[in-house]
Parts: sequence; structure tokens; C-alpha cells
Amino acid sequence: MNIEKKNGEHFRVTPWEVHGEVDYEKLIRDFGVEKINEQILEKIKKHTKELHFMLRRGVFFAHRDLNWVLNQYEKGEKFFLYTGRAPSGPVHLGHLMPWIFTKWLQDKFNAELWFQFPDEEKFLFKQGLSFEKAQEYLNDNILDVIALGFDPKKTRFLVDTMHANLMYKEACKVAKKITFSMVKSSFGMNEQSNIGSIFYTSMQAVPAFLPSVLKSRNIPCLIPHAIDQDPHFRLTRDILPKLGYYKPASIQCLFLPPLSGMNSKMSSSESASAILTSDSPNEVEAKIKKYAFSGGRDTVAEHRKHGGVPEKDISYQYLKMLFEPDDKKLQKIHDNYKSGKLLTSELKEILIEKINMFLKEHQKKKTLAKKQVKKFLKW
Amino acid sequence: MNIEKKNGEHFRVTPWEVHGEVDYEKLIRDFGVEKINEQILEKIKKHTKELHFMLRRGVFFAHRDLNWVLNQYEKGEKFFLYTGRAPSGPVHLGHLMPWIFTKWLQDKFNAELWFQFPDEEKFLFKQGLSFEKAQEYLNDNILDVIALGFDPKKTRFLVDTMHANLMYKEACKVAKKITFSMVKSSFGMNEQSNIGSIFYTSMQAVPAFLPSVLKSRNIPCLIPHAIDQDPHFRLTRDILPKLGYYKPASIQCLFLPPLSGMNSKMSSSESASAILTSDSPNEVEAKIKKYAFSGGRDTVAEHRKHGGVPEKDISYQYLKMLFEPDDKKLQKIHDNYKSGKLLTSELKEILIEKINMFLKEHQKKKTLAKKQVKKFLKW
Repeated sequence: MNIEKKNGEHFRVTPWEVHGEVDYEKLIRDFGVEKINEQILEKIKKHTKELHFMLRRGVFFAHRDLNWVLNQYEKGEKFFLYTGRAPSGPVHLGHLMPWIFTKWLQDKFNAELWFQFPDEEKFLFKQGLSFEKAQEYLNDNILDVIALGFDPKKTRFLVDTMHANLMYKEACKVAKKITFSMVKSSFGMNEQSNIGSIFYTSMQAVPAFLPSVLKSRNIPCLIPHAIDQDPHFRLTRDILPKLGYYKPASIQCLFLPPLSGMNSKMSSSESASAILTSDSPNEVEAKIKKYAFSGGRDTVAEHRKHGGVPEKDISYQYLKMLFEPDDKKLQKIHDNYKSGKLLTSELKEILIEKINMFLKEHQKKKTLAKKQVKKFLKW
Repeated sequence: MNIEKKNGEHFRVTPWEVHGEVDYEKLIRDFGVEKINEQILEKIKKHTKELHFMLRRGVFFAHRDLNWVLNQYEKGEKFFLYTGRAPSGPVHLGHLMPWIFTKWLQDKFNAELWFQFPDEEKFLFKQGLSFEKAQEYLNDNILDVIALGFDPKKTRFLVDTMHANLMYKEACKVAKKITFSMVKSSFGMNEQSNIGSIFYTSMQAVPAFLPSVLKSRNIPCLIPHAIDQDPHFRLTRDILPKLGYYKPASIQCLFLPPLSGMNSKMSSSESASAILTSDSPNEVEAKIKKYAFSGGRDTVAEHRKHGGVPEKDISYQYLKMLFEPDDKKLQKIHDNYKSGKLLTSELKEILIEKINMFLKEHQKKKTLAKKQVKKFLKW
């Protein structure tokens, strides 16, 4: 599928770029994923008791075969989780969002997690990125993931170049079933695409069935991920049954928007767009104050009179999507902002404090994580 | 380059198929390799004292940059050898030919040899071949290679799926420099080619510079191989300088013809075509007697009168290319056959005895080789 054409001219979502204001309803139709509805939320809740706020608020909004994976779970067949990170820069808040949710799933379902670091992916897709640089990012990104508190006994990291002895052979089995014509229509590959980028999707397919290979039995897989990765997993789902494995299920989230507004997604390559996990309290404060797009009015007087627009306000959105788990507190912020009682500057202060509290802890845990790397990498 | 078109309709040579009566002069022009001439033979002889009969008789007939690699050697910069075997069936005499010569080079130049077993290649290119079957062949083929007497201290085996931790990352570096368009013109890939086969040439490039990577210095590489593999190494030669490595040099041999006549090359998939290294004395005798194409005349009387045609006689060709290193003895056989003094049946007896003597030893060494596998694989 040529995503660009299908999505029209206003926005574009591929595994390598997200442009424009994303119309998620259109994406659901174009990608052919299912919307997460009340019924499936109830089904999750049966097992988790409470629902994560990212589910309650539709941050995770779409899925494939989530019903099936829960049915299997109810029959006693546990699933494993698979997610990942292609190192190509420092980690920002947008990256953390699905990982935080993944950790919740791990805890609630006592699930094994396979976390892939495809360290060759961005090298292959970005002209200027060297392997050396990608691996510097890898070493740093790994610490961010560990810092989130994944259970080292139930979490295995897969670094494509380091675990190629396990992965390359399995990737070849996938690759034999995928033609150039298929990657052309799934990812828009063309005659000038390099042959590493053409092959790459087979490597991304591997963690979805590697545990089944290693344990010699078919194990259901659930992939929490941002929706831009769906084209990979759509292909994976086509191929895996041909190799005798289950189709992986998936649960998909929105993009955390950049500081600049409700457009595309947060990106480390634009400094005015992202809060990095390495940012200092002063940097966070400065970035939010300077760049966080405001849904407020031009003057205080007007704001008091007409109120702000939380739907367009980045600070409110970050609270909703990531930093204020308490629905009541969030509602209050929403209402006060909308009524004009809460000013943009005050809203920003709330967010700054939340982020800095989070990052202080995260940075501490990241330092401690250095001692744990081996446990996650060598298993 | 679309080899099929370039070679015309009478024969075709690609890394995956050889059809028709090969016009080697045309291949030299089409591939753009250099013919091995007297001057370069003299240069080799300076170091080896004697010339291997495969050089004297033009079995190794073409090269790329052989002069350069010898010049570097004279300046004190030693080269390593790289050759390989893609396991997809049992080993036959045609496979042994370049390996026997490679062993001679190893001995004469005291050269390290990197022997690649791309166990994914034929899996990716042959519809019906499973990985399990390819790896059965691998286990057997490895023994054939060891049986030839390569120095375990100076020989390293690279099995693509087993050594992927070392190879995949380097292959990605190559792959980033090769477009689909390039493999389309080099190998005739098309929209229906699977993405593993499209990527594969990058893996075949790796052994040509992996020793340089591991030793952190640029080391010249010489690849002895049958000429059908030239399209791979032509691409490799284009890419390696872009990664900071020397272009690998190569020395290329003819194909050992099948039993059926001077056409295409010996192939294990046709039982009437090949002598396998596992054949018993009786099998060898039966195959040669039944299938080895004869350059003799229809009746003994005619043969005595007009003589045979050694150029077309498979038994004579096998003696020339592989089994009779003594030039004087070969010349005598040639002259007697041509004059009609030597009958086809007698010529076949000479060959049968030679092959069976060789295979008796080879099979013994192959059994002993089992104990050595580890040394070659784990280094």
C-alpha cells in the first residue's frame, strides 16, 4: 500500500516519517486496524482490575487481534510482549509513552517482554548516520529502557547486530516469503532503495516468533507500538502463519505531538520539538515556556473571558497522554483551562513540575541501569 | 549487466545457473576480466617455483587484479584467500577443482584462507530447499573441504547463519551502498525476487574484508573461484573501496563439464552428470562407462583409422583438468587417443582408476575430518 497516496496530501505516516496533522480515524480505515472499544476495554479490565489511563483516554486506540490474544490468555495460553527502539538519537518523551504502557502490561499479565533494538535500521535508512553513531545511541537508549523498571527476569533485549546468530537465519525464512513487489507497496521502496533497507522488515518480524522458535512451541505475541510501525507488522502477520506461527496481535498508540503543536510526532532531530530524557530542569522549563504550543488566548483578559482550548494545547495534551494519571485532577485542569480560570503560564508550570519530577527519578534510575545492562543483553 | 542478453542465446552464466556450451572468450569480454597470460604466470612462478597444472593448462584462465596482489606480496604485504561453498547438495568433482587449487595457493603463499559456507544462499534461491536440508548438506560439505587438507591453523570457516554476529553488521555496511537497481542489472533480480535473495550479495561480500575489520588493518584479498561467481565479486569490488578497503583480487577457473559432454557444468542435481565424492568404486565405474561422453569413433575400426577427439572427450578432459598432473603422461594419453592407438574404453579405465584412487583417500580423510570440524568453525 502506498501510504502517502492513501492518506491523501494532508498527512503522511510511514515507519520512517510522520508529517502533517494525523487523521487517526482515516489511519484506522487505511491501515485496516480495529478501534479499541468499550467491550475490549472491559475484557482487559477483567484481568488487570483497573485500566491504564492510556487506555481510558484512547492514547492506545487501535489494535489487531487483541480479542484473540485475550481469549487465548483466558484459556491459559500466555502471550509474550514485543516492542522496540531503533537507536538514531537520544530518547524523548514520545518514545517513553508506549514503553511505559508496555511495562504496565508486563506487570499486569506477568508477561515476558522481548525488546528489540534494531541498531541497523536507522543506519540503513538515514544517509548520514554511521554505525558507530547508531551504536552510541544504542548504548544510551538501552539505559532509558532499563530505567523504566522492566523486570530483568522477564525481559530480553535483542540487538540485531549482536544477536544476529539467533536472528539472521529466522529473518531469511521470513524474507523468502516477501517479494520486492510487496515491500514496494508496503513501504514505497523503489529501484534506488538500498538492499539492506529492502531486507530490513524481515529482521523486524523476527522477535514476533523467535520465542516460539527457541521454546519449540507456538506462543501468542502482543506488540504494543505507535501506529506508524503497523506496515511492518501487517507484513509480519501475512508471513508468520506460512511459517507455522501465530499472527502477532498488536495494540497501537497515538503519537505524542511535538512541542510545536498537534502535528506529526515528537522528534529528537528538532530541538524545538522534543523534551529529551537527558534534559535538565532548566532546559525543560525553557523548552516548555518557549515552545509548547498554547491553546490559550492572546491576552489574559481574552483568556479569562473566552477560556483556552485544551484540545490544541500541548501542555494539556502531555498531561493527558503521559503525566497526569489521575482522571479527576486532569478533568479539573481541563475545565479550569477551558473556562479561563487557568492561564497558559499556570498550566505550563503544572507540566514543568510533573516532567521535572519524572525526569529526576528517571535520570537517577538511568545511572543505576548501567549495572543491569548485561542481565538484559546476555540471557 | 543482464548476463543472459549479453551472452546471447547459446549459453548463459549466472551465479545460480549455467546453461549451454560456454564461450569463455566471450565471457572474458562480457564480464570484463583479464585473461591469465605468460607474464603473470612467470610472476606467480617466481614465488611458487613450479606452476600448478591448473595454471599451466588454463583451467584457471582469468583474473582481476592478480598483478596488483602479487606486487603487494612482493612488497611484503601478504594477502589472504577467500573462497566458499553454498551447501545445496552433495559435493562433486567439479566443486573440488577450485578448492584443490586454493589449497595449493595456501601452501605456496603461506596464506590464511577464509572459507565461506553461505548456508542461507541456496535456501533463498531454491524454492524447494528447506533450511534443515541445507544444513544437512552443510555438515557433510564441511567434511569434504577439510578432507582436502587445508591447514587448520590458517583456515577459518564462516557459516553465514552461525557467524552472523560477525557478518550481518558488515553486510549492512555493504548493503547500504547497493541499490535494487544494481542487483537488478547484476543478477537479473525483478519485482518477484524475494528480499532475502536481493540482500544476499552483501553477505557474500563480507569475507573479502572481514579479516581487515577484525585485524583493524587493510589486508589484500585473493578469491579463487569458478567464473560464474564473478557478478558477486564485481559488485563487491565496486563497494569495498567506498568502505575504505582494498578491492579484492580474483583468479577464476573454467567449469568442470558434466559427464554428458562439454556443456554447462557438473551438477549434483543430475545423477547422470556428476561424480560425487561419496560415490563407490562401482558407482564411479558405472557412471564413467555409461555416461562419460566419448570423443571416440563409432566403431573400433574407425577409431583406429581416424583417432579420437580429446577436446570433446570427457574422460580426457577430467584427466587434464583434475586427475593427471603429469604433463608428459597427459600428452601421451592425448596423442595416443588422437592417433587411435588408445580406445575410449581404455581411456575410461585410466580415468576410473585415477578417480577411485583419489576417492578412496578422500573418503578416508573425510571420516577423519569429523574430529577437526570444531577447529575450523570456532576460532
